[in-house]
Amino acid sequence: MTKKGNWVIIGRHTVLEALDDGQTIDKVLLDRLASFPDVVEKCKKHEVPIQKVPREKLDKFGTNHQGVAAFRSQVEYTDLEDLVPHLFETGSVPVLMILDRVTDVGNFGSITRSAEVLGADGIVFPVRESAQINADAVKRSAGALLRIPLCRVRDLVTAARFLKDSGFTVIAADEKGRTPLGDVDLKQPVAIIMGSEGEGVAPELLRLVDHIIFIPQAGQLDSLNVSVAAGIILYEIQRQRES
Amino acid sequence: MTKKGNWVIIGRHTVLEALDDGQTIDKVLLDRLASFPDVVEKCKKHEVPIQKVPREKLDKFGTNHQGVAAFRSQVEYTDLEDLVPHLFETGSVPVLMILDRVTDVGNFGSITRSAEVLGADGIVFPVRESAQINADAVKRSAGALLRIPLCRVRDLVTAARFLKDSGFTVIAADEKGRTPLGDVDLKQPVAIIMGSEGEGVAPELLRLVDHIIFIPQAGQLDSLNVSVAAGIILYEIQRQRES
Repeated sequence: MTKKGNWVIIGRHTVLEALDDGQTIDKVLLDRLASFPDVVEKCKKHEVPIQKVPREKLDKFGTNHQGVAAFRSQVEYTDLEDLVPHLFETGSVPVLMILDRVTDVGNFGSITRSAEVLGADGIVFPVRESAQINADAVKRSAGALLRIPLCRVRDLVTAARFLKDSGFTVIAADEKGRTPLGDVDLKQPVAIIMGSEGEGVAPELLRLVDHIIFIPQAGQLDSLNVSVAAGIILYEIQRQRES
Repeated sequence: MTKKGNWVIIGRHTVLEALDDGQTIDKVLLDRLASFPDVVEKCKKHEVPIQKVPREKLDKFGTNHQGVAAFRSQVEYTDLEDLVPHLFETGSVPVLMILDRVTDVGNFGSITRSAEVLGADGIVFPVRESAQINADAVKRSAGALLRIPLCRVRDLVTAARFLKDSGFTVIAADEKGRTPLGDVDLKQPVAIIMGSEGEGVAPELLRLVDHIIFIPQAGQLDSLNVSVAAGIILYEIQRQRES
């Protein structure tokens, strides 16, 4: 019932079983929402996104899909509520990257790679509107997606509030920023929110952060690539902590 | 005789004419080197690389290619010998990026974008073993390739020596580096050599540079993506100059 090295699971029963088993499912595909109230309910319970797709798309995965397919995750996810106390217990001054609707697989992978190399402690991103963490994303992260804790959360506002309550300084990187990166004390526990290219960080997140920072720019172009910007911020964090 | 919005020129006579006109040609394609001594000679004179390709490849550009085609450049190139005195005359403390065999179009475009945004004064790269500067590269640079001086040189060793003689501190970024980025005085005129991912900076360049620097890393992966590393170095240059 599975294809492509177990990445895609097809058939109503198989998908329900996988959800019940606690397997990490990235997404469930259905050709008709109304026909599968049990699948829809279980997805809601496990916070797995559902996508309605044409039957022809499911046909590509095999003939006996019965209108239901699911992508199984290659990576392990960590609960943010478990990760945070663990980080403080190990005595580190944690750094988390929050990716707000970074849907481009290349940027998602590249940021994760930089985060791993430059010593960040985890990546936080929403269930919806994130890049799909598939084999391509793992490759583009140079394997970092398999090494760094990944926290997939239902809602970034709740996650950001939780981090603030846990003692993190929450910082958004956004063109609307008024504070140069170098002016912020990054020696504290910090969570950095990077937005999507084009749209930036969501207004509801900007409202609750401690600082909105920008990277001083000299040229005529609007902004840096988001993965380059993330790399620079991670470098500045490390630079401040070592100086 | 031209196709694809004048990007490809076909036919022996047209290509010879374009070379004589002083048009910027990125590359000449020939199906048999021996049959076109006049084209080969003119390419050598104008320092245009030649590539031998199967006839079928040329057929894609049209039927009347006669064994000869050329890619015209979308961008303007600047002579390094003209650019350097110009930079010093304007009173700036110049920053140049030297790309040693960065053949990946995405990385080449991304580094150029960062260079433009973070105020570098030009990109220096060799005629051979560089990414082709085509429409895709321009797009990936967010247009920066059309705004920043591009110096295409025959030989990077000669170019690096010229820059040293002109008063530049020449710095290679390489995993073999022993000097942390932050320990180098970047307030002087600097030329930064970035190598290809995988191979790094060529040994003959490493031998003549003033410093080989590295970006302090904490994670398990070998190295940062070259475009992220370039962005971090450009940020550190700007940070030192503003502080």
